[in-house]
Amino acid sequence: MQAEIIAVGTEILLGQITNTNSTYIAQGLAELGIDSYYQTVVGDNPKRLTAAIEIAAQRNDLVILSGGLGPTKDDLTKQTVAQYLNVSLIEEPTAMQKITAFFDQSQQVMTANNRLQALYPAGATPLVNHNGLAVGAFYQSPDSADFLLLPGPPRELTMMFDTEAKPKLQAVYGHQAQIYSRVLRFFGISESELATRLQPLIATQAAVTIAPYAKANEVTLRLSAQADTQTAAKQLIDATETQIKVAAGDYLYGYGDDNSLAQVVVQRLIDCRLSITAAESLTAGMFQSTIGSVPGVSAIFPGGFVTYANAVKHQLVNVPQAVIDHDGVVSEATAKAMASGAQQQLQTDVALSFTGSAGPDPLEGQPAGTVWIGLAYRDKAPIARLYHFAGDRQRIRERSVLAGLDLLRRQLVLDKLLEK
Amino acid sequence: MQAEIIAVGTEILLGQITNTNSTYIAQGLAELGIDSYYQTVVGDNPKRLTAAIEIAAQRNDLVILSGGLGPTKDDLTKQTVAQYLNVSLIEEPTAMQKITAFFDQSQQVMTANNRLQALYPAGATPLVNHNGLAVGAFYQSPDSADFLLLPGPPRELTMMFDTEAKPKLQAVYGHQAQIYSRVLRFFGISESELATRLQPLIATQAAVTIAPYAKANEVTLRLSAQADTQTAAKQLIDATETQIKVAAGDYLYGYGDDNSLAQVVVQRLIDCRLSITAAESLTAGMFQSTIGSVPGVSAIFPGGFVTYANAVKHQLVNVPQAVIDHDGVVSEATAKAMASGAQQQLQTDVALSFTGSAGPDPLEGQPAGTVWIGLAYRDKAPIARLYHFAGDRQRIRERSVLAGLDLLRRQLVLDKLLEK
Repeated sequence: MQAEIIAVGTEILLGQITNTNSTYIAQGLAELGIDSYYQTVVGDNPKRLTAAIEIAAQRNDLVILSGGLGPTKDDLTKQTVAQYLNVSLIEEPTAMQKITAFFDQSQQVMTANNRLQALYPAGATPLVNHNGLAVGAFYQSPDSADFLLLPGPPRELTMMFDTEAKPKLQAVYGHQAQIYSRVLRFFGISESELATRLQPLIATQAAVTIAPYAKANEVTLRLSAQADTQTAAKQLIDATETQIKVAAGDYLYGYGDDNSLAQVVVQRLIDCRLSITAAESLTAGMFQSTIGSVPGVSAIFPGGFVTYANAVKHQLVNVPQAVIDHDGVVSEATAKAMASGAQQQLQTDVALSFTGSAGPDPLEGQPAGTVWIGLAYRDKAPIARLYHFAGDRQRIRERSVLAGLDLLRRQLVLDKLLEK
Repeated sequence: MQAEIIAVGTEILLGQITNTNSTYIAQGLAELGIDSYYQTVVGDNPKRLTAAIEIAAQRNDLVILSGGLGPTKDDLTKQTVAQYLNVSLIEEPTAMQKITAFFDQSQQVMTANNRLQALYPAGATPLVNHNGLAVGAFYQSPDSADFLLLPGPPRELTMMFDTEAKPKLQAVYGHQAQIYSRVLRFFGISESELATRLQPLIATQAAVTIAPYAKANEVTLRLSAQADTQTAAKQLIDATETQIKVAAGDYLYGYGDDNSLAQVVVQRLIDCRLSITAAESLTAGMFQSTIGSVPGVSAIFPGGFVTYANAVKHQLVNVPQAVIDHDGVVSEATAKAMASGAQQQLQTDVALSFTGSAGPDPLEGQPAGTVWIGLAYRDKAPIARLYHFAGDRQRIRERSVLAGLDLLRRQLVLDKLLEK
């Protein structure tokens, strides 16, 4: 079983947009255990699209096309595939109703070309577009490759692929096996270090696929297993996760594709009703903005301070001038004083502080990337940790924010408010 | 003249990374006026790579490959291309010295396979890798398509393509024409609105290519012109820009690929020595973090306030409780009081304030996306503007920050501190 993804769109060939659709479909195929050895991009040109389809249909069992289902004269994918398959295009009534209703509601005039969006190749199964008007299609051919037609806009494509196409691909090509997958998220460990620690496991583990993926400032592992039942597949994943935790559990902070260190930590603060504030120098509000991204944070986050200038560190969070004079602003003492001062000002359970050099220039003779992060936690004495981050100004600031979240996460683990 | 881009890498086929290399090369080809009708992705497999090369060489004058130049056993691009061309691989001495020096310096043992990185097909022009060890190559063939071999890591690829490959492509295929391009950046206007305003210009303008591109929250236009000299090409661009300014100059805020509204506004504040602070509610520090991303901002940004809770709006920036009680926090009066209060606290020339609902829930009965932005500018009376932003929580906050920067930019234009 082998599939090829063809993305249709002149804007990709001109470099005006990046082809994220093929990445998304490729991930899905990998999860389904369907091999994919080629991807192609071709423009909105029927002759060249036909050539690409011919090549793909010859070397594959399934050809997946994205793009070119819309109403404009550039959108020719359905027409070209129907011609290749020698079938006509027929109208999907529900999709047609949706198009008419859309134009009624928006009080725009519906031009004839909009009807094209409800057409699909005769003999195919139409696929509902939950985020748009153009209908998709899955065509099983007795004597050629099968075809899957998906829309181009990523919101429409990802939704249709996940909800409409994937279950059909699973049913037709999946050999009845059930797939279960889980994403584990790590912070503070590099992809190569994690891969080294898991090497024995990856080498001996045949039933579960372990795919590491380095994202910005963190690493995720996607575990996938196939079995006869969902329960059996889940058990395989559970057993593998237990072994992964032995090797690198200290760095595991959460699960899921759509998750982040900030979400895990802030949600826990909300659940435990622990209030938080911060005094930020080099991060200049990025930490507070990051925790502010979590819905419901207002219950535990009254506000905080950006204390860039030395005088403002004194004015807003009472860092003693003597501390700055004696230890400097990039120091353990200043980091602790900032955290304590912020905590006192707003009477919170938790306060973090960030002071250091984001670069490009050194600060107080400390090279860019030297950062002290302070933590005042409940009635404990404040602590501070020294970090050395590599990279440019933005990356140093981002890593500082994540390191602050991780410092707090580890404190919550120590305090038994978070499971390890 | 027609080129095809082949990205080599199993990790792309598995959806583990997105193929940004092809996007980057495609942009460069568009600028050079070289047509590209197909892109292909193939894995690290010599048989399938050969098949992809055969198809591409048949339908194109130039085949550009990225990836597979490294030292591991998966890296087979050079070997496969050399075999296809029936030439041997020879060693590039300078690249070899660089590899040896790298291993000497890092005190790692150099294994034999690292020598592979200095090899290139006999008869080709080797291309220097300024950001890595693997050498590239440009091979002009008398009887087949030409070949350009580039490394896979994006940092290495973009640098080699820009500094080594592009000038050679220009010299060989460019018909001596000189290309000049310029990027114009717009905020506050949609891509479709901008395209509509520029439609007459785009339709009649043959000498200059006008390519609009919608980025997150802004629109850029890339203008490109070819002429016999750089000066002539630049004059064509200048004339087109003048016409664009007539149609949409109000929204034009800057130039260049690597620029942003924050950079333009903050740099101008630094140049004019105008100090700035902010009091942020729904943006929770994102405005200050954004201006904090510009190097040198510390000269004009002493710090500021995140005032999420109502009590903190009063405590930190003296918003009268009566204003909150009477007008609510999502109000013109509160936005003005926050801006004035922040300005007074830190004695700055400029202060911005942000108050509104980021969602998902309404605030004070105002739907998510309702945002008041306040501006206290020098000794003028504070002003505030009401916005209604669509999208999710993060997008509403991002748009608020940009709207604040734009509000300030327009004030600087009014004050003749920024050219329109």
